Formats: sequence, C-alpha cells, structure tokens
Amino acid sequence: MREVQALQADHSDFKSFHHTTIVRRDLRADDVAIDVKYCGICHSDIAQVEGIDDVFKHPIIPGHEITGIVSAIGSEVKDFKVGDRVGVGCFIDSCGKCKYCLAGQEQFCEKGYVSVFNTPDYDGKVTEGGYSQSLVVKDHFVLHIPDTLNLAEAAPLLCAGITTYNPLVRYHIGKGSKVAIIGLGGLGHIAVQFANKLGAEVTVLGHSDSKRAEADQFGATSYEILRKDEDFDRLAGQFDFILNTAAIKLNLDNYLKLLTVNGTFCFVGLTMEEQQFNLFSIFNKQGTITVSNVGGIPMTQDMLNFAAAHDVKPQIEMIGIDDVPTAYQRIIDSDVHYRFVIDMKTLK
Amino acid sequence: MREVQALQADHSDFKSFHHTTIVRRDLRADDVAIDVKYCGICHSDIAQVEGIDDVFKHPIIPGHEITGIVSAIGSEVKDFKVGDRVGVGCFIDSCGKCKYCLAGQEQFCEKGYVSVFNTPDYDGKVTEGGYSQSLVVKDHFVLHIPDTLNLAEAAPLLCAGITTYNPLVRYHIGKGSKVAIIGLGGLGHIAVQFANKLGAEVTVLGHSDSKRAEADQFGATSYEILRKDEDFDRLAGQFDFILNTAAIKLNLDNYLKLLTVNGTFCFVGLTMEEQQFNLFSIFNKQGTITVSNVGGIPMTQDMLNFAAAHDVKPQIEMIGIDDVPTAYQRIIDSDVHYRFVIDMKTLK
Repeated sequence: MREVQALQADHSDFKSFHHTTIVRRDLRADDVAIDVKYCGICHSDIAQVEGIDDVFKHPIIPGHEITGIVSAIGSEVKDFKVGDRVGVGCFIDSCGKCKYCLAGQEQFCEKGYVSVFNTPDYDGKVTEGGYSQSLVVKDHFVLHIPDTLNLAEAAPLLCAGITTYNPLVRYHIGKGSKVAIIGLGGLGHIAVQFANKLGAEVTVLGHSDSKRAEADQFGATSYEILRKDEDFDRLAGQFDFILNTAAIKLNLDNYLKLLTVNGTFCFVGLTMEEQQFNLFSIFNKQGTITVSNVGGIPMTQDMLNFAAAHDVKPQIEMIGIDDVPTAYQRIIDSDVHYRFVIDMKTLK
Repeated sequence: MREVQALQADHSDFKSFHHTTIVRRDLRADDVAIDVKYCGICHSDIAQVEGIDDVFKHPIIPGHEITGIVSAIGSEVKDFKVGDRVGVGCFIDSCGKCKYCLAGQEQFCEKGYVSVFNTPDYDGKVTEGGYSQSLVVKDHFVLHIPDTLNLAEAAPLLCAGITTYNPLVRYHIGKGSKVAIIGLGGLGHIAVQFANKLGAEVTVLGHSDSKRAEADQFGATSYEILRKDEDFDRLAGQFDFILNTAAIKLNLDNYLKLLTVNGTFCFVGLTMEEQQFNLFSIFNKQGTITVSNVGGIPMTQDMLNFAAAHDVKPQIEMIGIDDVPTAYQRIIDSDVHYRFVIDMKTLK
C-alpha cells in the first residue's frame, strides 16, 4: 500500500475541492502502477461533483482521462514494462467472462464494469480517479499511448476521443460518407478530426458564425448555421450520419429532416430531458436514432493508434491542480478551447 | 385502352364507395396486364379514404395487396407469360436510375416512386389501385407468387408481409435472436411467423390474455402481458429486437427498457403523435430506435419465396366487394382475424 496525494471534492460546491492523501493498493499479479502525468477534465466529472446525490456519493476524487508512465508492474504482467507511456479511461475492471467482455465491449459487462472513480470496485472499496499522483489498474484496462502522441494532448482521447470514434466506426463512416457534427466543444472538435481522417465529408452545424474558422482548421468541409426552419429545409436529406455532441435539448424533428435515406442520428451529448420526435420525420427515409456510450478496450486502443497515425489532436488548455474549480466553472460557461488538462506535477 | 369495373370512394365517408368504370392503358412494351383475383385491405387504404384531404385527394380507388393472373404481356416482357400467378404491392414505378433504385430499394427512389393508387403516375394520371378487375403494371414491379402459396392468402404479403419481413432481415434476425412483437393484428400475426421461421425466439407482448393461444399457434415461444411498470421491469433487457406493429402511442421508455445491449426498437405501426423517450433509456445499452418502410422489389420477391418455403400464411377473412365499407369499420373496431381479403370475382 502506498499513500499518494489527490484532489477531492467533499460536496457539490466546487470550492470543496482540497488536497488529501489516499492509499493505492499493493500490486496484484496483473496490476500496473502508473505515475499520473496528465488528467483531462470532462463534463461527466462535473456532473458527478455537482451531484445527483442519491446516485453519486461524495467525497469524490474525479478524473477519467488519464495519461502517465508505468512505475511498476505485477509479476504476471507481460504487455507493459516500467517506463511505458500509458493511458486509463472510464473503467478499470469488468467480469472478463460475459459475452460483452469477451467481445471487447467491456462497457456493457453483465456484472457491471468498475468505473475509474466513484463506484465500488469488486473488492468493495470506492474507486478514486485520476486527480491523483498515481493509479493501480489491472493490465487489461491500461492502454498504450503511441510514441507520436503528446502525453498531455492524448489525455482527452481516453474519454472524449473514444466517445466520438466508437460511433463513427460502428456506423462505418469512411470515404463517401457525409457526416454532420452538432457542437464544436470538447467532443465535437475531436469528432470533426476523426470523421475527416476516416475519409468523410464533414459539416459542422452551429448556431452562429463564431466557430467557422476553427471548424475549418479541424478539417470540416463546410460549416452551416442553423437557426430558422428554412435553414433546416435547405439542408434536408444531406447527411448519412449526424453526431450530436451538444448536451442541450434540440428540436429533434428539425435535425432528423437533415438525414439521408437510411441515415442515423446519434447522441453522445446527453440531457436528462425527454426527447420528442415524430415518426414521420424518419419513416420515409427509414432513419435511425441511437446513442453511443464510450467504447471497449480494444476499440480504445484502435482509436489511440488511429489518432497517432492520422495526427488527430485534442486542443487543450493546460492548468494546474488548484485551477480545477475555476476550470469547472469555465466549462459550465462554455469558456474552454477545447479541453482542460491538469498538469499533475502541480499536485504535490 | 380497356374499360374495367372498380370500387371507388368519393369522400371520406365509407358509404361513398360505389362501383364505377375506369380505363386501363394499352400495354407498353414492358407492361404486364393482370386480372385481379384478390385484394387485401390494409390500414393505409383506410387512412387515405378517411382522408387527410390536403395530402390524399378523393375520389380514390384503393388497394395495394393485389394478387392475380397475367392476362397479357407487352412485346419486351421476358419474365412473365400469360397465366402466371403474380402480385403487385405498394408501388408500380420508380426512376430506375438513382442509387436506391439500382440497389433494389425502390421505396426510396430519388424521383419519388409511384404508388399503386392515388398518386400521380409519371404520365400525370392519378393511379387507381387493386379494388378493380385488372391492372396494367411495368414488369419490374410485378412479383411472382410461388406455386405453393394460395393466391388469396398471398395477397396480404404484398404489404403486411414485406413491411414485417424487411426489418427482420435488415436487423439480421435469425437463430439466437430474441424478438418481441407488439400487437397481434394484420401485421403482427405475420411478423410472428416470419421471426419464428427465421429462427428467432419470439415473444408476443400484449395487454390481456385474449391472444395467447393465437400467438402460440403462429409460432410464438412465449406471450407476455404488459400492463404495469413492474411487468416491464420483469422483462428488462430481454429482447434484441422489438417490432411494434401497433398503431398506437406507447410509453416508449417502458418498452426501451426491454431491449438488450445493442438492441433495436423498430416501428412499423405508426401514429401521428409526437413520440417521447429519455436518452438514458437507451444510453447504457447503446440502443437504437428506428422505423421500417415496406421493402424494395427484390426483397419483396425474397419474402414471397421465403413465405412459400416456410409456410408463412396470413390468416384471412374473405369478403365480397360490397362488404368493403363494413370491413373498414370492423378494422377500425379491431374486429378482424387477421386480414380482410376481397374476392374480386364479386366485382362485376
């Protein structure tokens, strides 16, 4: 057992963040110990800290976009060695035996996967995430970070990256695909890059002209402003695949109008509000509405390899550990381009 | 040009049905003339006769589940000869050149397909459907009825059959699939048979015990009554594919609860009302909501061949042409087991 420093929120008030000491377990035979170098900040960290208290309990040590360096390995670990550049994403254990685990879709484990933070591990201890100096994680759930990826820029790929890559691959996006991305934030700016590098023609759908230049820089072929019903009519039937990365309730019927025949509208930006749509918005085109929930470990490794091979790069703003409360507020205020990453050497 | 008898509705009142004389065109080189023997009655006939008058104009000669015998062929027709048993379904022309037509998905023709009744044909003349003594149809849109299918029982396959077969095939339903069918009416009783014969384990979801025996007879493995929230909880996560054949608004979130991981809820029963669902009903299982809109000509022929090979048989109540108004009212009152078919020799 080893004591390490961490940042903990005691309540839903961001001001409750404070430094604390936590304990990481002794290495099991299949464990990898990781010195955390960088940790991205994701909306879902904030959602848990802000608290739906009957679901997520405080205190919380968040963080699920983690990159670092292997500091030690268990006796049976073969795929990693001390000094390796590695990453850890949303989950750190699953049953390993059910059909979903066997298919590399650990996010659907029938036993229920173990989140990297704030859920009971299979041994009962509540997990503590990446806002800490080190982690101990079962080898199967540790990802290799390819050499050409910058370790700080790679951090957001562990959640925002796989969240956007997985649905694009699942729906066979590639050359000839016409993809629209709603929202150009933490998820959206990575989604545009992936879709572009997969070969698709990518359109960013926005509400104002303010992000046109940035969309272009990330590889969008075009940028469309959708405000009035006429704007939707103009683009009717244009897109095979629409990825909604915005966590706001949309007029879904308007967006469904934009789908081609056999087209798909996929949510990765979520809201708690009831969604509404008319069947006749998709009937004549046999359209589909779906969601995507991160991706399994094999797909996450593929995503990292693809990002390295095709220079997909999250755009980050580096912060110190004590900037976390301010960063949370800035994310809520949509004041980030595009992802905050904590430089963990500032945690002492 | 040839004058033939037909049954026409002049207004939305079913009492406005009356016998009339219409004209069928002289055969073009690729035309097939068909003596209509049987015509099924479908909800969508009724929907048009009942009238949303700004979309569908009266007078109307409905009918799109048509079987009969070839009486003459055009000079270039190769696939049919006089005396062949044939069928005609929802559409009788499409551009033949767009990517959907070339892919055998004529229902999505970019030019817009020509419905068998009550839409302008490409020559401008409004089409007149199967409640008539004969039809003249371009050969590509004529289906072969396999010898082992009864011509009267085959009629409903041309719409109800393809409407249910197409989504089952599109979602790869087969051995190992767990399928639920909502509704055991005109569509549902055929859907159960197709899903069963495709190899799936089929559950019928009903509101009362009244259709249990019939569900069993059509090949359902089980029958479940869903009334209270607890009923849905009991069946949570059970079905890979749910086909909703009921044209009523459901509590969609309750039904989405029943899907497995990666499961699909497909509507073929339609309502005009806005559908509502919560993203968290499908998020953790990456569920999908879709619709299906009949099927193309090649798929329709496959469906007929499959029905013949596997003894899929619509259960019909045969009526005379002058029973149509009564039959319409009985369909509205859900008093039919399971599909009315008009014996066209009663039209004189």
